[in-house]
Amino acid sequence: MTAKSTPRTTVRRLKERGIYERATIEAILDEALICHLGFVHDGHPFVIPTIHARSGDTVYVHGSPASRMLGTMATGTDVCLTATLLDGLVLARSVFHHSMNYRSVVVVGRARDVVDPSEKMEAFRTIVEHVQPGRWDDARRPNPDEIRRTRVLALPLDEASAKVRSGPVGDDEADLGLPVWAGVVPLEITARAPVPDELLEPGTQLPSYLKGWGRVSG
Amino acid sequence: MTAKSTPRTTVRRLKERGIYERATIEAILDEALICHLGFVHDGHPFVIPTIHARSGDTVYVHGSPASRMLGTMATGTDVCLTATLLDGLVLARSVFHHSMNYRSVVVVGRARDVVDPSEKMEAFRTIVEHVQPGRWDDARRPNPDEIRRTRVLALPLDEASAKVRSGPVGDDEADLGLPVWAGVVPLEITARAPVPDELLEPGTQLPSYLKGWGRVSG
Repeated sequence: MTAKSTPRTTVRRLKERGIYERATIEAILDEALICHLGFVHDGHPFVIPTIHARSGDTVYVHGSPASRMLGTMATGTDVCLTATLLDGLVLARSVFHHSMNYRSVVVVGRARDVVDPSEKMEAFRTIVEHVQPGRWDDARRPNPDEIRRTRVLALPLDEASAKVRSGPVGDDEADLGLPVWAGVVPLEITARAPVPDELLEPGTQLPSYLKGWGRVSG
Repeated sequence: MTAKSTPRTTVRRLKERGIYERATIEAILDEALICHLGFVHDGHPFVIPTIHARSGDTVYVHGSPASRMLGTMATGTDVCLTATLLDGLVLARSVFHHSMNYRSVVVVGRARDVVDPSEKMEAFRTIVEHVQPGRWDDARRPNPDEIRRTRVLALPLDEASAKVRSGPVGDDEADLGLPVWAGVVPLEITARAPVPDELLEPGTQLPSYLKGWGRVSG
């Protein structure tokens, strides 16, 4: 399956890095812990980091009903949701060919205010499980007051594209003989030891899903 | 020193997380490997991941002269540059109080096309040293053709704010007795072993700045 490539989502620069396959787009969105959401308010562009989560053809974001970002999105205006994974530093022999290995997704479109309580609850589950698989079955579920105090927006995954750079350095042939170390420094997000809350009930064990933490590989 | 807080950069949601001190803003920009740049093109918002680097009161971005992002920026239109560091997952007893520890900076303003060759060269140095301190003295410097083929934009660090969440979970008192593990999972970007280019000149040693890789703490 291929997402719709439109003038807005067609990768313009370095076209060989553009990917429109749905599986690639979904894998990047699912691995990225957060996204950056762009919207226009009073004619000015704003970019705000936020948690997203995908369920099928929909990307959910959430927050306070007082949020300017969600309020603007709810008016049905265009937004741009971008998620980026940094995979490595590409250190070439020449400054010019320095680069980064990365995988990014851009989704553009108009969001829908989620008001149906059961879709809202399902969105909460999707968001919690996106950030930490296994967590939904452990934590206390949202009560009606908390559901009311959280706004959820749904962005369709119709117009989307991915851009990926991977692999080794791409130096000019004339530079290959230079006595300069060149290569890739692979990067990843890792977790240090979980820090239990000071007020934890005695005897509460670390859940198994927090042992050997790591993001799903895209 | 305090950056100017304007209606555009005043933190609206969770105001206690808003910070306008220049040292905090600079530390976050300097630690973040990349930013997300938002701009409006044909009335639509776009958000593109890109490398940034700060020098004093200026944030530089760069790319191809054919880049839509840089071309739009060069018209003197408003842009929004957002850099985000993820510091941890905040796993509360209740789903509602789940959160993330993070540090983010939002810079808004209008950029300037950098055309002076010596400022451009200094911007390249700043960008390379931002991503990998020590690299500029190793790699082959840009030649006149490469300088011409790279566009550099300068965004003033006038209108900026930071937003920070740190510390433990913030559960409601009524939930403290629940038998649910709660705490923080600290996150960081780490490097795996550098992968030398296959065509590396025999005997080229790994530079000392790549041993024990880590980002400067903010």
